[in-house]
Amino acid sequence: MPLEIEHKFLLLNDDWRQQIEKSVHYKQGYLSSTKQNSIRIRVSDQQAWINIKSAVIGTHRHEYEYEIPLQEANEMLDELCHKPLIEKKRHFVHYDKHLWEIDEFMGENAGLIVAEIELSDLDETFKKPSWVGQEVTHDLRYYNNNLCKSPYKDWGVTP
Amino acid sequence: MPLEIEHKFLLLNDDWRQQIEKSVHYKQGYLSSTKQNSIRIRVSDQQAWINIKSAVIGTHRHEYEYEIPLQEANEMLDELCHKPLIEKKRHFVHYDKHLWEIDEFMGENAGLIVAEIELSDLDETFKKPSWVGQEVTHDLRYYNNNLCKSPYKDWGVTP
Repeated sequence: MPLEIEHKFLLLNDDWRQQIEKSVHYKQGYLSSTKQNSIRIRVSDQQAWINIKSAVIGTHRHEYEYEIPLQEANEMLDELCHKPLIEKKRHFVHYDKHLWEIDEFMGENAGLIVAEIELSDLDETFKKPSWVGQEVTHDLRYYNNNLCKSPYKDWGVTP
Repeated sequence: MPLEIEHKFLLLNDDWRQQIEKSVHYKQGYLSSTKQNSIRIRVSDQQAWINIKSAVIGTHRHEYEYEIPLQEANEMLDELCHKPLIEKKRHFVHYDKHLWEIDEFMGENAGLIVAEIELSDLDETFKKPSWVGQEVTHDLRYYNNNLCKSPYKDWGVTP
């Protein structure tokens, strides 16, 4: 039973940029996003996936992901997914024993950067890098499905 | 661009049962079913699929289908899909140059049997077997996603 345990943070500064190991460009959209679950199509330059998440608020939720053909994924993004789509660069940074994924949003969410860490069980601890700021795991606004409905540019005030 | 062109009919009698070539048991449910699209999980005894359809009413619609692990599909049916799930036996019958799929529903839709034929383009013609009755392609009640929301047992009158 794939279970996702993740924590999401804002960034205090740009120091993490010195430690980027890899960056990937993602475009993604939602076929569905309800109180029960969200169904996302994501494409990178080379690959595409469909992802199903139960909509449990907080740090753990069921998640299923399957690779699908890139061309069909792009069709679904164009024709079936809610607009606006989300575009972001995901930067990968290792710190201590963990991999951090830092999402730098573009388009209607430009200006927003969040860092995520995924843990393998609920009791696992982790060391916070100096560039990691306020935790926003439980703040619904930062959920990618909500960034479609209410993009960062419309938030008005820098949070 | 996968495009589905199908026609759906009620059955006049049971003569088609003499010509069954194969029957498969399906259990399926919907992760999402909206005016825009439907996202279905289906399992047979051995395999499972996720299916995405655009919700164009009528005979043609976009459709995407991907095989997924059986165990994860069963978890999604149990935990994430709308209830009641749909169970049916699908019987395969060849007639003239076409394959007919005849769905015999069980559980809350017991008593309902519909025959479907899928065509490869909008101009393709087909020969109607003697056991095929009224066309119900455009009747929303017979859509499988609607059979979840309003099962055949609740229709009151045999249509």
